[in-house]
Amino acid sequence: MTGTAVGLHRVLEPGGVLPQAARRLDTDPRIRPDEVRVRVERLNLDAASYRQLHTAHGGDPDAIRREVLEIIEARGKMHNPVTGSGGMLVGVVDEAGPDSPLGLKPGDRIATLVSLTLTPLAVDDGLARWDGRSEQIPASGHAILFARSIAAVLPADLPVPLALSVMDVCGAPALTHRVVAGLVASGAPPVVAVLGAAGKSGSLSLAAARRAGAARTIGLVPTEDEERRLTGTGLAERVVRADARDPVAVAAAIGEPAGVTVVCVDVPGCEHGAILATAAGGTVIFFSMATSFPAAALGAEGLAADVTMLIGNGYVPGHAELALDLLRAESGVRSLFTARAGDDSAQ
Amino acid sequence: MTGTAVGLHRVLEPGGVLPQAARRLDTDPRIRPDEVRVRVERLNLDAASYRQLHTAHGGDPDAIRREVLEIIEARGKMHNPVTGSGGMLVGVVDEAGPDSPLGLKPGDRIATLVSLTLTPLAVDDGLARWDGRSEQIPASGHAILFARSIAAVLPADLPVPLALSVMDVCGAPALTHRVVAGLVASGAPPVVAVLGAAGKSGSLSLAAARRAGAARTIGLVPTEDEERRLTGTGLAERVVRADARDPVAVAAAIGEPAGVTVVCVDVPGCEHGAILATAAGGTVIFFSMATSFPAAALGAEGLAADVTMLIGNGYVPGHAELALDLLRAESGVRSLFTARAGDDSAQ
Repeated sequence: MTGTAVGLHRVLEPGGVLPQAARRLDTDPRIRPDEVRVRVERLNLDAASYRQLHTAHGGDPDAIRREVLEIIEARGKMHNPVTGSGGMLVGVVDEAGPDSPLGLKPGDRIATLVSLTLTPLAVDDGLARWDGRSEQIPASGHAILFARSIAAVLPADLPVPLALSVMDVCGAPALTHRVVAGLVASGAPPVVAVLGAAGKSGSLSLAAARRAGAARTIGLVPTEDEERRLTGTGLAERVVRADARDPVAVAAAIGEPAGVTVVCVDVPGCEHGAILATAAGGTVIFFSMATSFPAAALGAEGLAADVTMLIGNGYVPGHAELALDLLRAESGVRSLFTARAGDDSAQ
Repeated sequence: MTGTAVGLHRVLEPGGVLPQAARRLDTDPRIRPDEVRVRVERLNLDAASYRQLHTAHGGDPDAIRREVLEIIEARGKMHNPVTGSGGMLVGVVDEAGPDSPLGLKPGDRIATLVSLTLTPLAVDDGLARWDGRSEQIPASGHAILFARSIAAVLPADLPVPLALSVMDVCGAPALTHRVVAGLVASGAPPVVAVLGAAGKSGSLSLAAARRAGAARTIGLVPTEDEERRLTGTGLAERVVRADARDPVAVAAAIGEPAGVTVVCVDVPGCEHGAILATAAGGTVIFFSMATSFPAAALGAEGLAADVTMLIGNGYVPGHAELALDLLRAESGVRSLFTARAGDDSAQ
């Protein structure tokens, strides 16, 4: 690993940290031999970030837009300082350095699969075309990819916003698939419970669990409306309803503890319910950026819960392909994604 | 699971959350049939909490003591609101309800192995015997254990402060042992790197990794002094020096990426170094309460790092026994623990 590969040379302050930890990045459009410059078309804020901005500004779309602009200008990246999260972008490759290993060429329409929290980004249109009402932001400007970035060429058979919205959460189904498939291979297909199951990462995780051979899938949702929608898709063998922040209600709704519990609810305070709903020896996968490390660690200890707790890594090789395949194969996933356009109640 | 078993009835506010998430607990000394009341002798703050208090008050011992008292009185538990962490306590069982499953009887001297963040606690001596200069606090008062708590009777062959200090971090060696032993069983003994290796959880994790059959152990420390001390114990095949918050320096010091990286440094910002130092397909175990969930999740994604990231669960069955065994068997561990009395630079 060299510093250039991970973008150290783009860190303006503080010195020595990686781009994700930086307060400010250098957005100079001139690329190094192993970099790629992208003409930005659209930003997709992560759900936790948009929700925080929305709440902080009482839903005022102009105030939300102003703050996003200010963050990008101050930091050289879209890195919400409160949630610590970012999102992703879509654009067209403008110039690819001769030493870039990403295999991209000018004209490719791509989505970045690394977080906006570490992607040098400059916008030049004041986000004027964004109404501030959803996390998908039409935008103009440029972004820089490093050698050790991840970007996927957008599929020709799917609308861009749909593909983007799938790729944004593709780490969740990929890791869920890996964990469940590992248990299936060892002869113990698990019951899989997904919290926030009607959301984007939730519905894909349900589909991934089933494809990997889960013994049974349970989807937990907060509202009657989501219960009806998820039931209609047939993605989960059982659909149950509870507030994911209420541990006792979650455990009661799930019933017999799950072997694998996947947390896709993007609000704080869901750690304890997930732990309580999981069987001894089971696994909890936390995908929500609202997860608190101490709440999970101390919660499991406090409940004397012998569970394996995974930090949902957004990168698993082949994650974008798997998620797009699931969307194509499962009409239920697609219908939830389509119904959710503009709806950001979960990741 | 019933609500009483996990202490829901002791939550004063807000309603419906578990004791760890509560702002305030009920410290009524009258116990329910499945509870145990303990006469407190000593509190042991976790290192991250003591460090935060120490920094916030510029090291002023009286101010530190006052704030700890205020937290306990306001919350009915020692739950540092900034770090979200607590610690543990030692005391003597005063009364055990007839339905308590913990197997304790009046007169047993025990250590609680669940966090102070969820343990109802009242002190009655104003912490007058504490000098405010270390995380071990002589104290008088009472605490309540629930049915689903964990407590261990203190061993007769070890001084109380030493046993306490071992039990406080016993989750780390237990989980390290489990992860390494799993890889050994699958025929792939890993190289294990421990960040913060001369600290309490670090030295025990090194010893646990070796006992579990690690191919090689590497200990990373921040200072020349710790380098010398750790080298003297022989606990690690290699001892290297770097600032754990500097990702590039950490990766360079570790050299060939590790199969398992254990993070025992109790300062923020160590996520990226641990990820960079870990081989593709490897595992990072985060034990520090200073770990940031988004920094880890987005850091791995941003580095395109296909690593499994575990939240260090403080509870693994048999954890106290394993840690005490390691201390007895490894003179190097014991010498580090003894040398560290009063030193809290790492967990």
